[in-house]
Amino acid sequence: MNYKMLGRFISMILAIETASMIPALLISLFCRERRPVIGFLVAMAAAGVTAAILYLLTRGAGTDFYAREGMVCVGVSWLALCLFGCLPFVVSGAIPNFIDALFETVSGFTTTGSTIVPSPSSLPKGILYWRSFSHWLGGMGVLVFLLALVPVSGRNEGYTLHILRAESSGPSVGKLVPKMRQTATVLYLTYIALTVLNFIFLLCGGMSPFDSVCTAFGTAGTGGFGTRDTSIMEFSPYIQIVCTVFMFLFGINFSMYYLILLRRVRSVFKDEELRFYVLTVFGSAGLIVWNLLRNNVYGVGDSIRHAFFQVVSIITTTGFSTANFENDWPAFSQAILLILMAVGACAGSTGGGLKCSRVIMLFKIMKRNIGEVMHPQKVKTVRLSGKPVPEKILANTNAYFAAYILLMVGSFFLVSIDSFMLGSPFGFTENSTAVLSCFNNIGPGSARSDRRPTSRSSGSSRSAC
Amino acid sequence: MNYKMLGRFISMILAIETASMIPALLISLFCRERRPVIGFLVAMAAAGVTAAILYLLTRGAGTDFYAREGMVCVGVSWLALCLFGCLPFVVSGAIPNFIDALFETVSGFTTTGSTIVPSPSSLPKGILYWRSFSHWLGGMGVLVFLLALVPVSGRNEGYTLHILRAESSGPSVGKLVPKMRQTATVLYLTYIALTVLNFIFLLCGGMSPFDSVCTAFGTAGTGGFGTRDTSIMEFSPYIQIVCTVFMFLFGINFSMYYLILLRRVRSVFKDEELRFYVLTVFGSAGLIVWNLLRNNVYGVGDSIRHAFFQVVSIITTTGFSTANFENDWPAFSQAILLILMAVGACAGSTGGGLKCSRVIMLFKIMKRNIGEVMHPQKVKTVRLSGKPVPEKILANTNAYFAAYILLMVGSFFLVSIDSFMLGSPFGFTENSTAVLSCFNNIGPGSARSDRRPTSRSSGSSRSAC
Repeated sequence: MNYKMLGRFISMILAIETASMIPALLISLFCRERRPVIGFLVAMAAAGVTAAILYLLTRGAGTDFYAREGMVCVGVSWLALCLFGCLPFVVSGAIPNFIDALFETVSGFTTTGSTIVPSPSSLPKGILYWRSFSHWLGGMGVLVFLLALVPVSGRNEGYTLHILRAESSGPSVGKLVPKMRQTATVLYLTYIALTVLNFIFLLCGGMSPFDSVCTAFGTAGTGGFGTRDTSIMEFSPYIQIVCTVFMFLFGINFSMYYLILLRRVRSVFKDEELRFYVLTVFGSAGLIVWNLLRNNVYGVGDSIRHAFFQVVSIITTTGFSTANFENDWPAFSQAILLILMAVGACAGSTGGGLKCSRVIMLFKIMKRNIGEVMHPQKVKTVRLSGKPVPEKILANTNAYFAAYILLMVGSFFLVSIDSFMLGSPFGFTENSTAVLSCFNNIGPGSARSDRRPTSRSSGSSRSAC
Repeated sequence: MNYKMLGRFISMILAIETASMIPALLISLFCRERRPVIGFLVAMAAAGVTAAILYLLTRGAGTDFYAREGMVCVGVSWLALCLFGCLPFVVSGAIPNFIDALFETVSGFTTTGSTIVPSPSSLPKGILYWRSFSHWLGGMGVLVFLLALVPVSGRNEGYTLHILRAESSGPSVGKLVPKMRQTATVLYLTYIALTVLNFIFLLCGGMSPFDSVCTAFGTAGTGGFGTRDTSIMEFSPYIQIVCTVFMFLFGINFSMYYLILLRRVRSVFKDEELRFYVLTVFGSAGLIVWNLLRNNVYGVGDSIRHAFFQVVSIITTTGFSTANFENDWPAFSQAILLILMAVGACAGSTGGGLKCSRVIMLFKIMKRNIGEVMHPQKVKTVRLSGKPVPEKILANTNAYFAAYILLMVGSFFLVSIDSFMLGSPFGFTENSTAVLSCFNNIGPGSARSDRRPTSRSSGSSRSAC
């Protein structure tokens, strides 16, 4: 284990976090929020000093960097990010309880979007900005950012590859351009460009600049923190449609945008995952519109708008909401949304969940297995977008899925202990949907009728997710 | 495809079914039940004539028999069994609706144990016997029975192996004795011996011979049909303990009994699946006892009895019940039972679910995968009970699990349509637990508070499972 390299890595991550707090600090200064200013200054001092000490202690770090180092670096980085990231909440008194603040920060960086804040609109602006910015930083992976922008002495291709692998959200990591570092840069520039575009479109709809930038962060990271107590519900239909479109765009594999820039549009249309994603979104929304109309929940226009918004919000694991679907929508629509929670967005996007490509592969492996029982002689390769998928990736996909389900069942068991030891009133539906929602990074806007942010106290909610 | 062989196979299955109806017919004659007698005679005539015609049509069947033939034979056999098996219900008027009768028969042969009969105790005795006997016939697999007892002209080892593979309930099929046919015979003799023992123990507790034989069938097949409206609830604690012990025994891999007969007791203790099964049963029951005592649901003795009964009933996928756990028990106990539903019993037993050995392998594969990421150079073999598991079986276990989950999600989706198209009042909890219960062949006694047999009409329940 190369501990010096690990230390250097963490020091850079903390330096980035310190720098990231500057805009939040400026906003707090501008809005004359005294305690948040202190909060940010303390947090920046703590993170900055730790970064400096680590930097000095880790001079002359070697260049040995293997898969193990990649895993540990990514794991420890997230821990460090969250521990220092929750300081502004605690010190400013916006979320005085440390565990609550940590919950909020982890929910932010992991782009889950579950909240313990009963009324986000009452938070100071600087704090609200930092809360939303954690989604943006976590969405693409702050480590990818590091790879893209900060040079590390003596680093090699293997180093970058191992980090990208441990950090990446899909079944495999491909290089867009020959060098890994350039790939990271391309991905990050796309991310920034789309976020800016989203911000401009929101601004054009009459949203305040502050709300626009926070909503753009929440959308880009597919996180779900908003600035209002009712998510996107109180904004105009135009804003809701802009959110729908951009959530959809941030759920697509970012490589696709790079291919479009290279004018390789045909490759984009041939991409099987993208096709699956588009078909699933339109198919699910279509079924929900039909269901809503048959049950006379809304008129035609509202049904289409709410159905598409909610489908895209859930499948990209963002978790924004425009409708109180857990109470008002029929059970069939709820069942579709529950299934979409697990499906998730495309690999290589900022969305969570299983990822469309894994779902496709699981079906193809199943098909192949049935075929093999019938014709044991034939050995078939599984193809994705026409290309054969290596057996190793197929095996990993299966193992990933098994781990995914087993961990979810384990979480359900742990959450159920809550109702036993701490006497929480939550039953099977609340516990299972809360696990599904948190495990897939969806956060608010799940089918948890009893767990709406507005109806829970900060004390009991800690153990909810 | 060897169609003649398939026809010959079905003709023998139907001949066995015809013969199986004789005891039920005799019971109906003895009890002077006029319409059931007609029902059984009509069903026997239909099955017998079809068997005879098929037998005559398939003279000179070849000996080519491959995996494909094995799969199709098993699939068509189950269909034929159920179609002819439901005739007594329909013709006797006990369950006049054909779809209802088919539901009951499929639930019986698959040892699911879900029922559309609101009050089983009001059924004629002969019909009640046939209903329970379907569990016994389906439990071990009537096809294994066929292999054990009926000689097929020109059949070879491959033939028997392919049938056993398609019919077997575990991840792999092993030979106990050199010849497959003898293996089948040993398994069936064990099954018969245990059932007789169960019957005798029930009889000693003062249960009527008729109730004893039906309960023994329901226990042996891990099915769950009983003769009373309240399952095992109204019987004495002695009977409940006997049921607990025998459900537990029928959930163990039958090979273990063979090893005990051979005095290879050390191999039995070394068996990892058995250890896991025993630990899971005792661990789960212990946690539930603790939970029940803390919540003052019962006293110490009752808590232990009900907890063990319910844990064994659920993990073996039998579905008998002695307590109204879906209403009276705390959420933590319910969560444990829900997880046990999916775990299931040991491979090579009559129980359903995933099977303990698959669960163990899934955890071991997960552990190996994590290890491989950390140390990509080392290739580890996965071992079960000390023996290395072939990679092919590991891959199949993963694929099986993926198919298991995907089919369950698909079923949940289909059941949810019911609430949309047919206006059923069932929501997420009812739909998801009903799918979990039926998919794992548990049947009654699940956490379905709205779907108790006593509270549902035969019309709406059809689509419930």
